Amino acid sequence: MEQRVKEYSVSVLDLNFGKPIVVLNEADARELGVTPGNILLIIHGDKQKTGVVMTTKTMVNKGSLMVTNELANALGLKEGGAVGIKPLSIPPSFPALKKRLKGERLEESHYREIVKDVVEGVYGEAEIAAFLVSQLFYEPTEEELTYLIKAMVETGSRIVFEEPANDVHSVGGVPGNSKVALITVPIVAASGLLIPKTSSRAITSPAGTADTVEVLARVDLTIDEIKDIVKKTKGVLAWGGKLNLAPADDIFVNIERRLAIDPIYQMVASILSKKLAMGIERLVIDIPAGRGAKVQEVSKADEMAGIFIRQASKMNIALKVAITYGGQPIGLTTGPALEAREALSALITGKGSRSLVDKALLLAGLVLELSGRVPAGSGEEVAREIFLSGKAYEKFKEIIEAQGGDPNVKPEEIPIGKHSYTLKSPLEGAVTHLDNAAITTLARACGAPYDKGAGVYLHAKVGYRVNKGDPLITLYSNSASRLETAVNLLSQTQPIIVEGMLLKTLP
Amino acid sequence: MEQRVKEYSVSVLDLNFGKPIVVLNEADARELGVTPGNILLIIHGDKQKTGVVMTTKTMVNKGSLMVTNELANALGLKEGGAVGIKPLSIPPSFPALKKRLKGERLEESHYREIVKDVVEGVYGEAEIAAFLVSQLFYEPTEEELTYLIKAMVETGSRIVFEEPANDVHSVGGVPGNSKVALITVPIVAASGLLIPKTSSRAITSPAGTADTVEVLARVDLTIDEIKDIVKKTKGVLAWGGKLNLAPADDIFVNIERRLAIDPIYQMVASILSKKLAMGIERLVIDIPAGRGAKVQEVSKADEMAGIFIRQASKMNIALKVAITYGGQPIGLTTGPALEAREALSALITGKGSRSLVDKALLLAGLVLELSGRVPAGSGEEVAREIFLSGKAYEKFKEIIEAQGGDPNVKPEEIPIGKHSYTLKSPLEGAVTHLDNAAITTLARACGAPYDKGAGVYLHAKVGYRVNKGDPLITLYSNSASRLETAVNLLSQTQPIIVEGMLLKTLP
Repeated sequence: MEQRVKEYSVSVLDLNFGKPIVVLNEADARELGVTPGNILLIIHGDKQKTGVVMTTKTMVNKGSLMVTNELANALGLKEGGAVGIKPLSIPPSFPALKKRLKGERLEESHYREIVKDVVEGVYGEAEIAAFLVSQLFYEPTEEELTYLIKAMVETGSRIVFEEPANDVHSVGGVPGNSKVALITVPIVAASGLLIPKTSSRAITSPAGTADTVEVLARVDLTIDEIKDIVKKTKGVLAWGGKLNLAPADDIFVNIERRLAIDPIYQMVASILSKKLAMGIERLVIDIPAGRGAKVQEVSKADEMAGIFIRQASKMNIALKVAITYGGQPIGLTTGPALEAREALSALITGKGSRSLVDKALLLAGLVLELSGRVPAGSGEEVAREIFLSGKAYEKFKEIIEAQGGDPNVKPEEIPIGKHSYTLKSPLEGAVTHLDNAAITTLARACGAPYDKGAGVYLHAKVGYRVNKGDPLITLYSNSASRLETAVNLLSQTQPIIVEGMLLKTLP
Repeated sequence: MEQRVKEYSVSVLDLNFGKPIVVLNEADARELGVTPGNILLIIHGDKQKTGVVMTTKTMVNKGSLMVTNELANALGLKEGGAVGIKPLSIPPSFPALKKRLKGERLEESHYREIVKDVVEGVYGEAEIAAFLVSQLFYEPTEEELTYLIKAMVETGSRIVFEEPANDVHSVGGVPGNSKVALITVPIVAASGLLIPKTSSRAITSPAGTADTVEVLARVDLTIDEIKDIVKKTKGVLAWGGKLNLAPADDIFVNIERRLAIDPIYQMVASILSKKLAMGIERLVIDIPAGRGAKVQEVSKADEMAGIFIRQASKMNIALKVAITYGGQPIGLTTGPALEAREALSALITGKGSRSLVDKALLLAGLVLELSGRVPAGSGEEVAREIFLSGKAYEKFKEIIEAQGGDPNVKPEEIPIGKHSYTLKSPLEGAVTHLDNAAITTLARACGAPYDKGAGVYLHAKVGYRVNKGDPLITLYSNSASRLETAVNLLSQTQPIIVEGMLLKTLP
C-alpha cells in the first residue's frame, strides 16, 4: 500500500490503559482510514512501536498526535518531537491465528509469529482471547506446547548465570503458600547452590511470594541487580514482573484471569517459559493438590506433572515434581505481613507449623538432590540440618540486606493491620474443615495483598481440639470498613468448621 | 461488599475509544483496587453506566475523575458534576459465560444475561471474543440460537408500525450489491406496501447500501423521522447504525470482523435480530452464492437458508430466501457514487445491467408475493411493470426528497472521483473471469467507501467479447496517491481475465 511519510508532531499523554495509546485528531483518523481500537505503527528514527488508536475532536489538532508515557519512553520521544505513523491492518501472524480458529494444528513458525505479535502489542484483547479459547476447546498437542513455550522464551529477555541455576516453583492456589520460598531459598543458597528465584505478585490470591518478601526488602530488582546479589549471596527473592522474562506469559495470564480459564497446558507453559528465560537448569515444581486448591484432584496433579516432566526433558531442564497436600492453608497465616512474620519466626527459632516447615524442607531437599550433591532420599535431612543450624537464617539475613532490607528485623516488629476481629469457637470440639476459598476471600476482603498488613491468622487448623470461646480466626486490616466487610463475610463463607457446629438455620 | 458512597467530581474528556472511558487518579484506583482495563459502574442520580478504567498521575486529582463525552451524555453529567463509582468485579452473566467456556449448553436466561452484559458494556473485548469463539468451536443448537436472537432484540429499541412491515435484506459479500435496494425499495413502496428498510454502512466491502444512498440523501434518520417518512412514502432507505436496534449485534460483528470469523448462525442472528427490532413481519433474504462471494458454495447457502427459515418461523416472520448468483459483481459499478449513478440511471431509463435489474425485480417480486397481494410466480412480472412504468422512479424521488435529498438529481450530476485510470485489454477475446475479491480490494484501495467518489467501473463482464485496446476497468479516486496505489495493485490482483491473457511471466 501507499507509503505514508507524513510526520506528526507529538505531545505526551499521562494516561495508563495497560497498553500503548495514540490519540489522533478525528480528521487524521478518517484520512488514514483508522477507527478507535485499531492498531497503528509509530515510527521514530529506527525505532517502531504499536499503539491503540483513540480519536478526539479537540485534544490534538490535525497533524499532531498524543502518545502515552510508555510509548514516548520506548521510542525515545520528547514533547514536540515528530513521528511517522502507519496503519497496521493485518498482523503478520493473522493467517496462523485464522488457521487455529478453523481448528487446524500449527507449526513452530506459526507459534513464533503469534507470540511475537502478542508481545509486540499488535493484537488486542479479542485476538488474544480467541487464541486462548481456541486452545481450550481444541487442546494443543505436546509438540505444539513445546513450540509455544519456546516462542514465549524467545520473545523476551534471557539471563545466563555463571553456574547452574536452581529453582523451586509452586503452581500455587493455596492460601499461606507465599511464605514457603522464604525458607526454601535460603536453605538452598546456604548449601552453596545458586537459586535466583523470581516470583509473581498475587493475582487472585491474598499474597504472592513477591508481595510477602516486599514486606522485608525490595523485590523490583533489575537483571543486573539480581546478578550482583547472587554473586554475593547465591540466593535472591525477586519479583519477575518487570524483567521481561517471557513477556507473552503476562499477557496471556491477564486474559485467562479475566475469563477465569486456567488450562493445564498454559500453566505449564507459563512456568517453564519464565524459568527457561531465567536460565534455570534444575527445577522443582510443587503442585499443591486438595479440596479448594487450584488443583483439586491428585489425578489432575498427575496429569500436570506428566506434562511438566515431558516438556522439561525436551528443554534440557532437570525437573522433579512434588505433589503436596493443598487441602488446607499452609501454616497459620495468610497475607503478606502475617506470612513474612511466620516465615521469619520459623527461620529464627527453627520451629513452626509443620505444614510450612516440612514443606519448605522437603522442597529444598529435592533441589539438593537434583544437584547431585546429596544422595537421593537424604535431601530433606540435609535441608533440616541447614535450617536448624541457623545457617538458613543467616543466609536469609544476607539476602534481605542485599535486597535493601533490614536484616535484623524481628517478626513482632513487622507491622500488621491495626484493626482486627477474632472469631471464637461457639463450642468444644475438633476442627474438621478449613476452607481455602473462604480464607482467600476473607484475606482479600481485608485488603490483602495491597494492604500488606491485611490477612487472616488461624489459631487452629484441621484436627486441633478447641474449647468453647477459644479463638479460631483473627482478621487483620488497616481499613475499618474493609474489616467490617470481612466480618460480615465470616458468616456467609464458613472458613472453619468445628465438629458439631451448626452450619445454618433456615429460614 | 462495602458500600462506596464517596462522590467524585467530574470533568469531561474528549476521547473516543469506541467504548466509555473513566480516567481515575492512580491513588484513587489503588484505593478502589482497580487497574487499567477494569470496569467501573458510574452512578449519577438514578442513572448508571459502565466505563473502562484508565489511570493517570496528573490529568485528574485524587477525588476527581474524567469521563468521555458519550458517558457524560448518557448520564446527563456536566463538567463539575459529581458521581459515585463502584468497581464491577464479576458481571452478572459471568457464571453463564464460564459454563459456555466449559462446553455446556445454556438456557434462555443465560443468553439474556450475557447479551445484557455485552450491551451494557460490562464486558471487554476478551470476554466477547471468548463467547464468540466458544460458539465457533461448540456451535449453538437452533434452540440456543433462538434464545440468542430474542435476547439481542430485547436489549435494544423496538419499532412498531401501523401496518405490516416488509423488507428485503442481502447477506452481502458481492461487490456492486449495495445499489440493488435503491431499485427494490421504491418498487415495493410504489406497490403500496410498507418497506422501512434499514441497512448498514460498509464494513469490509467498498459500499454498504447506507453509503450509497447517502450520496443522494440523508441516511442518519431517527426512529421518529423514519416513521414520519414512511407515513408519507411507504418506503425509506435509512442507516440502521444509530437506531439502537439489537445493539449487541454491532458489538458482536465488530469482534467477528477483527477475528475474521463469520459463523453462519451469527449471520442469521445478526439479520433476524435487526429485522425483528425494526418490526419487520415479512422478509426476503438474498444469499448471493458463488466464487469470491461471502457464501462460496450453494450447499452453504442452502444450510444458511434452512436456519433462516426455521428461526423466522419461530419468530412469526414470513420469510423467503432467494439464493442468487454471486460469482461476479452486481451491475457494472462498485463504490458509493458510481453505484448511486447506476441505480438512478436504471430507475430513470428502465434499462440497466441484467445482473442488477433482474435481481432487483426478482427480490421485489418475492416481497409482493409474500404480502399475498400478488399470486405466487407473478411477483417479478408485477415488479417489472412498476419499474418500467416509471412509478418506481417517481417513488424513489419521493423517498429521496423525504430524506432531505435533491429528487431531481441526474446520474451524471453525481460527482465521482476526479482522478481515474483505465485498464485496457491487451488482446482480443472473451472475458472469462471477474474476481470479486480483487475488485473489492481495488475499490477500497481507491478510497471507497469513505471517499464516496472512489470505486471501480467495469466496462466488460464475464462473457463479453473485447478487442485489443478496449477499456476493461476504470478506477476512480479523489486522491492521486490512492489511485496510484490501486493502479499498482491491478497487476497483482488480476481483477479481470480475458481469454488467452498472459497471467504472469517468471522470474
